[in-house]
Amino acid sequence: MSKLTQIRSYLQQEKANLAVFSDPVTVNYLTGFYCDPHERQMFLFVYSDRDPVLFVPALEVARASQVLDFTVFGYVDSENPWQKIKADLPSTDSSKIFAEFDNLNLTKFQGLQTVFDGHFENLTPFIQKMRLIKSQDEIDKMLVAGQFADKAVHVGFDNISLNNTETDIIAMIEFEMKKQGINKMSFDTMVLTGNNAANPHGIPGTNKIENNALLLFDLGVETLGYTSDMTRTVAVGKPDQFKKDIYELCLEAQLTAQDFIKPGVTAAEVDAAARNVIEKAGYGEYFNHRLGHGIGMDVHEFPSIMAGNDLVIEEGMCFSIEPGIYIPGKVGVRIEDCGHVTKSGFEVFTQTPKELLYFEG
Amino acid sequence: MSKLTQIRSYLQQEKANLAVFSDPVTVNYLTGFYCDPHERQMFLFVYSDRDPVLFVPALEVARASQVLDFTVFGYVDSENPWQKIKADLPSTDSSKIFAEFDNLNLTKFQGLQTVFDGHFENLTPFIQKMRLIKSQDEIDKMLVAGQFADKAVHVGFDNISLNNTETDIIAMIEFEMKKQGINKMSFDTMVLTGNNAANPHGIPGTNKIENNALLLFDLGVETLGYTSDMTRTVAVGKPDQFKKDIYELCLEAQLTAQDFIKPGVTAAEVDAAARNVIEKAGYGEYFNHRLGHGIGMDVHEFPSIMAGNDLVIEEGMCFSIEPGIYIPGKVGVRIEDCGHVTKSGFEVFTQTPKELLYFEG
Repeated sequence: MSKLTQIRSYLQQEKANLAVFSDPVTVNYLTGFYCDPHERQMFLFVYSDRDPVLFVPALEVARASQVLDFTVFGYVDSENPWQKIKADLPSTDSSKIFAEFDNLNLTKFQGLQTVFDGHFENLTPFIQKMRLIKSQDEIDKMLVAGQFADKAVHVGFDNISLNNTETDIIAMIEFEMKKQGINKMSFDTMVLTGNNAANPHGIPGTNKIENNALLLFDLGVETLGYTSDMTRTVAVGKPDQFKKDIYELCLEAQLTAQDFIKPGVTAAEVDAAARNVIEKAGYGEYFNHRLGHGIGMDVHEFPSIMAGNDLVIEEGMCFSIEPGIYIPGKVGVRIEDCGHVTKSGFEVFTQTPKELLYFEG
Repeated sequence: MSKLTQIRSYLQQEKANLAVFSDPVTVNYLTGFYCDPHERQMFLFVYSDRDPVLFVPALEVARASQVLDFTVFGYVDSENPWQKIKADLPSTDSSKIFAEFDNLNLTKFQGLQTVFDGHFENLTPFIQKMRLIKSQDEIDKMLVAGQFADKAVHVGFDNISLNNTETDIIAMIEFEMKKQGINKMSFDTMVLTGNNAANPHGIPGTNKIENNALLLFDLGVETLGYTSDMTRTVAVGKPDQFKKDIYELCLEAQLTAQDFIKPGVTAAEVDAAARNVIEKAGYGEYFNHRLGHGIGMDVHEFPSIMAGNDLVIEEGMCFSIEPGIYIPGKVGVRIEDCGHVTKSGFEVFTQTPKELLYFEG
C-alpha cells in the first residue's frame, strides 16, 4: 500500500476527508518531492476520495510538476497564499481536518482556519507511527547513508595530526564528502579533542589535536533523502590507562545494548541495558543523556531510546545506540551506531571498527 | 534600552506579564545564548516585572548558565517538560501571554496551555519589527559576514576550471571557509553553470563548468550570529553577445534599485525600480521572484522587497537586492548584494566587483 494510500485509508477510517501537510520532510516522505519553502507557504492536501494537490511557491511549480503525477498550483510573493488556496483548491467537505501539529505553527494554523471551517485534529502520531517502521527500500537507503558515514570518519582518521585543529579536520571531511556527491551533512560535523570531548555537546573550534588523549568524531550525511549518524572515539598517541578503561566501559555498554535489541523488548529496557553497565562501574552520573534516537529522513525522529519509554521495539525500527561517558577535565567518550531492528536482533548501518584505534599525532 | 527591556516595556504597555519564546534564533537575539533543542523543548520566559527564566534540555543547563545572568532550569529526557515547567516556573499572573505564533507549533502550544490558563496573543509582529531595524553593533557583524562572503566567492573564482564540477567548486569554497573558522554557511552554497543557472532554484550537481557560458555563485556565511548572502554571475570563456546583454540588463536593474533606496520609499517601490528596467527591455516574465528579502540573524527575514509591500523603508533595515533573469535553455543571471539603509541611501555589505568578470575555463 503506497504511503498516500495509507493516509487515505486512515482518513476514511476516521471519517475525515482532508489531511494537510506542511512539513517539507513529510511531504518528501509521502510524495518524493522535496522543497523547503523557507518563510513562504507549502501545503500538501491529501483527500480521502480524490487525488492530492500540492500548493507551493510559484518558483517551485515547474520542478514539482515534473516529479508529481497530481495537480500542483502556486502563488507568487505578491499574492495572499490563503486567498489563493481558498480560490483554487477543489472544494470538499472539510468539517474534520487532519494536520501534523508538531509541524504546524500558529500562523499557518490561523491561515488555514481562514480557508477551512472545520475542526483540526492531530496527525502527528499517525505519521510518526508510519515513519517509525522502515520499509526495505528505506533501510537500503539508510545503509548507503551509513556507508558514506564510514567513509567520512575514515577521512577524519587520515587527517589526524597534532598540527591540525578540530576545524581543519572537519573541513577535510566535508570537502571529501562534497567531492563524492554528498550535498549535505546530516548535522554539523563534530571533531572534539581531549577535554573538549568531555563535554557531551562540545563545540569544535581551533583547538589543535591533543596528544596522548582521546579524539571524538560525530558525523553523518544526508543522501537519497535519508540520514546517517555515527560516533567514534579514537586514541591519539598514548592515552593513560584511565582513559582506556573509560573507553572499554563505554564500548561494553554499547555492545551490550546492541546485543540486547530484538522485537518485543521496550525502548526503556534497551536504554537500561547500556546504562546498567556504566552505573555498575560507578560512572552513571557521567552518562547524562538518553541512549539513542530514532533516525530516518530526519536525523532525530522517533523512537527515543530512554528511561520511561515503554514503546515495544518492532522489526523495521531504526535508531542510534550511543552511550557516552563525559568526565569534565578528564575524558570524554561516545560510541554510536545506528541500525535497524531485524526479526531477531539489530543490524547496524556503519561498519567502522569499535575496538580502540590508535593514531600517531 | 536592552532588547529584554524592550520586551518588558511592551508587556507593560499591553498589560501582560509574560512572553514565551521558543525560536532558537529569537532566544539568541534576546539573550546571546544559542541552542537548537531539536525535538526537545526550550522556552525563554520574559516577565514584565521580574528576571527572565530559561528552560532548556538538561544537557544545555551548564552552558546556558555560563552565558546568562538569570535563572536557567532544565529537564532530562525521561521527564515531562510541561509538568516540569508547571512545577518549577515562578508563578505569575498569566491571564494574557505573548508568544511568537510564527515559531510556535500546535504541539508546543497545547503543551503551554496545560501550564498556563491565559489567553495567547501573537508577539511575532513585535519581534519582527524589533529585528527589522538593526543597531550599529548588528550592522558591524553583518559587515564581517559580508567580508567572508567576498572571500568565499573569490575562492570560487580561483577554482573555475572546465575540469571542475559545480560540486567540486562548492567543496573548495566551503573547505576554505571552514579553515578560516566559519562553522556554517548561511544556506547550501550554489554554483550553477550554463543552463543550470537558467533555473532560479537550480540545484548544483556533477555538471562540469561550461565554456563560453555564464557561471553563477550564490553563497553566504554565518558568523557572530549573523548571516551574509551574495550572488555573482561571471563569464567563463567567451559567452555570446546575448548572454552579455542579459548580464548588463540585470546589472542595470540591480544598480538602479540600489541607488533608489533611501528612507521614505516603500519596499514595493524598490522592487519596481529594478523590475521596470527589466520589463522595459521586454524580459519581465523572466524575472519571476521578488527583488529581495530581509537579512540578519536569519538569512531570510523581514522586510520582503516585493510588489504589494507598502512598508516604508527606514534607516537600519537590512535586505538583499537580487534581480535575476532566467531564460530556460539560454541564460541565467542573478546579481545580489545585501546592505543596510543609511540616513540617505543604501550601503552594501559585499564588495566583489559587479562589472562582468571573465575567467578562462
